[in-house]
Amino acid sequence: MEPVNLDAMLARFAEHWSPKRIAQVNNYDVRIVKVQGEFTWHTHPDTDEFFLVLGGRLTIQMRDGDVVLGPRELFVVPRGTQHCPRVDTETALLLFEPSDVVNTGDAGGELTAEVEQLT
Amino acid sequence: MEPVNLDAMLARFAEHWSPKRIAQVNNYDVRIVKVQGEFTWHTHPDTDEFFLVLGGRLTIQMRDGDVVLGPRELFVVPRGTQHCPRVDTETALLLFEPSDVVNTGDAGGELTAEVEQLT
Repeated sequence: MEPVNLDAMLARFAEHWSPKRIAQVNNYDVRIVKVQGEFTWHTHPDTDEFFLVLGGRLTIQMRDGDVVLGPRELFVVPRGTQHCPRVDTETALLLFEPSDVVNTGDAGGELTAEVEQLT
Repeated sequence: MEPVNLDAMLARFAEHWSPKRIAQVNNYDVRIVKVQGEFTWHTHPDTDEFFLVLGGRLTIQMRDGDVVLGPRELFVVPRGTQHCPRVDTETALLLFEPSDVVNTGDAGGELTAEVEQLT
């Protein structure tokens, strides 16, 4: 039984917009992801989505306005809310969401990523 | 729509072993808690429990051994696993668990705390 170190896990991969599962809580995933640039506008019709900035700066664009998060700041995008994450320089995030959530939600497309388990 | 700043939220209270809800993700709570000393041995028969150390150092005692977590380290106590958190100096944690989870699980007692919402 070992703790999971966020920085050790972040050092294990380099690609952007490709979430990695680092723990599970019941049928929810704890995922980390590195992001850079702009994602795609999408919606998760059936679930809220939790974002915590581990390092960097994240703008969550929504139709009613943007939310900007720095390190140790979090935001929950309510289910059914169109959003599009954007960052200027590489940023690391922790996500909590049901294990069946696909990163691009209802939008699909080439940014859709399989969630790999880091152990 | 504002981000939630962990440090601003931690500055809002001083008491130990009394989790505060700072966000909800579907029917799960994101809670923060300050802890000092030893909690009580207990089990959550129906749910895993997620611990992330925000500052300080946490020992999760379990019957099969201890896990020690520093800042930016996390651990999930599996459902049904007896555990007892312990810290030497004040430590701040982020918890992720179903909204109906009671901090003392099946043990009850005077450390049982109502979860207050911080807004």
